[in-house]
Amino acid sequence: MKWDDLAKEPCSVARSLAVIGDRWTLMILRDCFLGVRRFEAFQARLGISRTIVADRLKLLVEEGVLRKVPYQDGPARYDYRLTDKGFDLYPVVMAIVRWGDRHYAGEAGPPILHRHRACGHDFHPVTTCSACGEPVDARDVETRPGPGFKGS
Amino acid sequence: MKWDDLAKEPCSVARSLAVIGDRWTLMILRDCFLGVRRFEAFQARLGISRTIVADRLKLLVEEGVLRKVPYQDGPARYDYRLTDKGFDLYPVVMAIVRWGDRHYAGEAGPPILHRHRACGHDFHPVTTCSACGEPVDARDVETRPGPGFKGS
Repeated sequence: MKWDDLAKEPCSVARSLAVIGDRWTLMILRDCFLGVRRFEAFQARLGISRTIVADRLKLLVEEGVLRKVPYQDGPARYDYRLTDKGFDLYPVVMAIVRWGDRHYAGEAGPPILHRHRACGHDFHPVTTCSACGEPVDARDVETRPGPGFKGS
Repeated sequence: MKWDDLAKEPCSVARSLAVIGDRWTLMILRDCFLGVRRFEAFQARLGISRTIVADRLKLLVEEGVLRKVPYQDGPARYDYRLTDKGFDLYPVVMAIVRWGDRHYAGEAGPPILHRHRACGHDFHPVTTCSACGEPVDARDVETRPGPGFKGS
């Protein structure tokens, strides 16, 4: 089947990327997985305007990726914490981190190391097949329209 | 260690996201993995302006993610093909696809199915630990500064 010929489908990838397909949003999510929770901390780490941070956090809360948890009254202050839907983004964030470490870390090596508590070793993420458990390479995958395909 | 206290590091993630942290760029990369190679096909599928497509393709070529391969002379026409560095983005693209299928595909189900040729089964990607091979969950990972850490 030639994908070139297919009409674009209003696909779940497009919807996903309307939420997370943004440089600052992905930086914020990376920081969430490093334990950052507060507006001022996101802003200080990213070095960007309050407006950009506020816009991104607002969208992530609206989409159910983060939730606001009050930690102070009068004036109210909130932690931004990952929801289960947010935690589901860990493979996305880790895949980006891994790609960055491979291609942009340079001789100094990775800026951050990840240790898998269950086995006790530093690791990098490996994408595997849910059916057989082996690592998956793009060249070894075939695609075809699924039940939600809207193309023609 | 409290990440909130750390100065931002000029990290490999930030550099990566300067390249791929864009909605249209990620849509183009998704299409590359579906076998789309030509300017007009990217544009038709995404339904966006030629300028946006041209800008994104130019950056991806400059960064060595795609390479231009001529398929016609006078006027010259090019295929855009993934390099090895580009193929290394498969885990990123598949993780986004998976997240979209889980949270935005709706009752219709995923728009595209992926079959792992090696085992012959439809699959979704599972992120595993390079050390022990088990699936990795964010809650089971500890982070610490690595050799390339530039914070203070």
